[in-house]
Amino acid sequence: MSIHDIARADHACLIVHGPDQPGLVAAVTALITRNDANIVTLDQYSDNPAGGAFFQRVVFHRTDLSAALPAIEADLEKTLGPYEMSWRLTDQSIPKRMAVLASTSDHCLLDLLWRHRRGELSVTIPMVISNHTTTAEDVRSFGVPFFHVPSRPGPDKSAAEAEILRLLDGNVDFVVLARYMQILSEDFIAKLGVPVINIHHSFLPAFIGAGPYKKAKERGVKLVGATCHYVTADLDEGPIIEQDVVRVTHADTAADLQRRGADVERAVLSRAVAWHAEDRVIRHGNHTIVF
Amino acid sequence: MSIHDIARADHACLIVHGPDQPGLVAAVTALITRNDANIVTLDQYSDNPAGGAFFQRVVFHRTDLSAALPAIEADLEKTLGPYEMSWRLTDQSIPKRMAVLASTSDHCLLDLLWRHRRGELSVTIPMVISNHTTTAEDVRSFGVPFFHVPSRPGPDKSAAEAEILRLLDGNVDFVVLARYMQILSEDFIAKLGVPVINIHHSFLPAFIGAGPYKKAKERGVKLVGATCHYVTADLDEGPIIEQDVVRVTHADTAADLQRRGADVERAVLSRAVAWHAEDRVIRHGNHTIVF
Amino acid sequence: MSIHDIARADHACLIVHGPDQPGLVAAVTALITRNDANIVTLDQYSDNPAGGAFFQRVVFHRTDLSAALPAIEADLEKTLGPYEMSWRLTDQSIPKRMAVLASTSDHCLLDLLWRHRRGELSVTIPMVISNHTTTAEDVRSFGVPFFHVPSRPGPDKSAAEAEILRLLDGNVDFVVLARYMQILSEDFIAKLGVPVINIHHSFLPAFIGAGPYKKAKERGVKLVGATCHYVTADLDEGPIIEQDVVRVTHADTAADLQRRGADVERAVLSRAVAWHAEDRVIRHGNHTIVF
Amino acid sequence: MSIHDIARADHACLIVHGPDQPGLVAAVTALITRNDANIVTLDQYSDNPAGGAFFQRVVFHRTDLSAALPAIEADLEKTLGPYEMSWRLTDQSIPKRMAVLASTSDHCLLDLLWRHRRGELSVTIPMVISNHTTTAEDVRSFGVPFFHVPSRPGPDKSAAEAEILRLLDGNVDFVVLARYMQILSEDFIAKLGVPVINIHHSFLPAFIGAGPYKKAKERGVKLVGATCHYVTADLDEGPIIEQDVVRVTHADTAADLQRRGADVERAVLSRAVAWHAEDRVIRHGNHTIVF
Repeated sequence: MSIHDIARADHACLIVHGPDQPGLVAAVTALITRNDANIVTLDQYSDNPAGGAFFQRVVFHRTDLSAALPAIEADLEKTLGPYEMSWRLTDQSIPKRMAVLASTSDHCLLDLLWRHRRGELSVTIPMVISNHTTTAEDVRSFGVPFFHVPSRPGPDKSAAEAEILRLLDGNVDFVVLARYMQILSEDFIAKLGVPVINIHHSFLPAFIGAGPYKKAKERGVKLVGATCHYVTADLDEGPIIEQDVVRVTHADTAADLQRRGADVERAVLSRAVAWHAEDRVIRHGNHTIVF
Repeated sequence: MSIHDIARADHACLIVHGPDQPGLVAAVTALITRNDANIVTLDQYSDNPAGGAFFQRVVFHRTDLSAALPAIEADLEKTLGPYEMSWRLTDQSIPKRMAVLASTSDHCLLDLLWRHRRGELSVTIPMVISNHTTTAEDVRSFGVPFFHVPSRPGPDKSAAEAEILRLLDGNVDFVVLARYMQILSEDFIAKLGVPVINIHHSFLPAFIGAGPYKKAKERGVKLVGATCHYVTADLDEGPIIEQDVVRVTHADTAADLQRRGADVERAVLSRAVAWHAEDRVIRHGNHTIVF
Repeated sequence: MSIHDIARADHACLIVHGPDQPGLVAAVTALITRNDANIVTLDQYSDNPAGGAFFQRVVFHRTDLSAALPAIEADLEKTLGPYEMSWRLTDQSIPKRMAVLASTSDHCLLDLLWRHRRGELSVTIPMVISNHTTTAEDVRSFGVPFFHVPSRPGPDKSAAEAEILRLLDGNVDFVVLARYMQILSEDFIAKLGVPVINIHHSFLPAFIGAGPYKKAKERGVKLVGATCHYVTADLDEGPIIEQDVVRVTHADTAADLQRRGADVERAVLSRAVAWHAEDRVIRHGNHTIVF
Repeated sequence: MSIHDIARADHACLIVHGPDQPGLVAAVTALITRNDANIVTLDQYSDNPAGGAFFQRVVFHRTDLSAALPAIEADLEKTLGPYEMSWRLTDQSIPKRMAVLASTSDHCLLDLLWRHRRGELSVTIPMVISNHTTTAEDVRSFGVPFFHVPSRPGPDKSAAEAEILRLLDGNVDFVVLARYMQILSEDFIAKLGVPVINIHHSFLPAFIGAGPYKKAKERGVKLVGATCHYVTADLDEGPIIEQDVVRVTHADTAADLQRRGADVERAVLSRAVAWHAEDRVIRHGNHTIVF
């Protein structure tokens, strides 16, 4: 499958999100019909039919989509205004621009690059930024620009963040922290202004800090896993997109746990990135709806 | 959770199924709105937006549902007629009547009875029928009638089937074969006229016949599992509702495989029964859509 | 399979545990040979070949085992003394005596009783103790004595614990907390003097306290699971025996999460109990070796 | 972890395999002790203590291993001769030489190359052979030689096989078919004389032939998986080394199933290769023991 199968011509994705109300689904589907579009997939969810929140994802096909978009947007504005719903409409023929920040570990980074090349991810990758140079050659062999922004403790941090911001500014639609081992400041996240996706081991809040697999080994865990989430001010507590685990035994060393954990990390991250890229993930409070 | 939470007053489930066409979703949701009902959940799927099949499941709430049902049904007939869609509407306050056929193995049977008592299954269980008496006391301790219909090879088979048909006739909405070790004739299935759900080990078509776990052990399988499906004339080849597996190792004996397999069987069967009871499963060709 | 297949005549289980040293395996296996016994299964593990801890489980067959046990024990004492190893030898024809403490939830309790009846657990169940009477009839239908020991806040607690201790004293080899919703005092655990196995949801240390599934739902977890462990003074932090998870989605309610969690709990607990009953679990520090 | 952590200096792996007999474990462990070696890990399994087959894997450390090997081998010959056991002893400091045969699919091939570079596989990769040139550049970027041996129907097949044999002859210890889409002749396998590992979707014997994922989609499977096995004359029926599955739904297209299947294939194959490389897999009849 090439990327052209995913980033589909004349297909749009509409996300509707707000207080659940009678008539909402009918209003949206009528709107699509009167704009000469045809629903391809429709998912919806209400977390409480009596006064809860409503979430809808509609992918529709419309001949000459780009010409029709302004009219459809105006109609949405007018139709959904009375319902006080938030909505966003994206042209699925335009893949999202994804930057990847990484450090020395290459398992998540290379898996994303490889899946992108296979056409499994509806994204473009304008750049990879790392505080190390170890992965530069690999990244460039995929035809992706690599920028080295070293990080040092102390005042250097804001300098590095500023440089990263300059590189990303206006160039990306979301950022993936693919085992990027620097803590990003709240200020950085705020200035960046696009979603940031992070991946970490799934023991949290257990085994916080350095050497989580060694601590997990000492506790004798029988599962290791990974959690992928959006970054918020509360670094590792943002809305979860995807999680998974694998079984381990007492015979696995801490290094084995780490290796098995790395396998789960790349699998979980790649699924979360694919879903985000296809607008399948809606954030609400501190959790996500994944259609 | 009591059964009253599942078999909900004033809630109906509408299944719509047929050729995908523009305007279909809008037509259905408009219909629900104009009948003063409110959509609680809506799932839909199209297996091919260009000329494929369309599947929709809508649960809606309507005050005084039973009084309103005839009008809603008439509206459905009129509205969906032009689309040539098949549909069915069920009142969710009325649990389906489920008969269970079993032999000597009790793991699937008791799990269903126990989940029913906990209120996890939106069904009533008017009877259990078995060709053995070993489970009679257990079944009756759950307050469920038990009927013994012995099976013998040869001409007895049709006699037994006839007796089972007399017991089931008009009394049940679906039948579960919970490790019922008799092959039912095509004629029986045809006369029965309600869906029949079966569970078997998931190696098929490998290891056909007696002693599948012994054969699986000899082949050194690393997974054992179970498949739950609707019964068709092609006994073990009907549309799959649910499947699952667990890992095993060389150190597991054939008896261990069978025990692990039994754990998967009861889990898979209970999920499939719950989904069928809530009208979540739509059959299409030789497969199912599970919402 | 009957319990007689598990609680095997003339079979013994030897656990050896201590500092790893050259010659240890040879010494143990030579001992078994010179006592006219034949090794049936042997598992061993060393957590660090250079100065780590050594763990071994040997099941052996010896004709007239009970007559030979004193001599084998004397030989073990003499042989393993110089190595400063701890060891224990159990006659596998004698099932362990397991008491179950429960409250109102029946999923873990009934699964243990049912598996015991099927012969899947090498135990006898001399009693079930509960602070409620809701499960009394079910328990007794399995032919197992049921004792009601009500728990009330305040001074009643020690009275209830004292009564439980009187019931258990000398009658059991281990205790299972099958969703027993009372916190047992350190003093109780110390006086009890036999291993205690507990089961809880696997989010800990996240979502501590009441309503864990509601909190998990708010965080949008994609997995729910269960952890089974030995009880230590640190209530929910003892050595883990077994863990497992299942996938959930945003469409699952907090009640759904709890139901799926209950399914995992009973599966995880039954595996842990079976392993403990067969002497497959060795505690070391705050973790376990499971052979 | 570098490869030097896996391919460990002064460590040997002994596999013992044959009819189970009293005294066998004692004999082997005594032999290791008297050759001044120290057991690092020992696993054993007997498929039937009364007259079954016995399997043992011992990793031991011996200072100056290579000098001591001839004496240890002579001792093994002498000691195990009376027991009629087969055995093999491998120096773990010498990684096995693995050739990979591939076609156009790169998911299994690149995963093996990447894991090898990370030091996760105790192998060297002297060559990759393909009947296509699509992966040549990628393979060579890992510093691994790539040979193109085109395959054509008819008489060309034996010519291609002969060329592959010339390349492999004397240069490899085992061969991995990483989605190599040519059927190898029995004659080729016989002449090759080293183990061959294959990976395929796990539906077999269902959905044989072309387009298995399309057929699986039509049947509505809820799981897709992969099976890794040794190649025997019966092409896809050889002893299974490892299997795994992932869940899918009706909403996954046949292309989705294939992508999810590819993820399982590379995971399953990499585990099987790692285990084979570390001599953890013993073939017996048509199944394997995996320690």
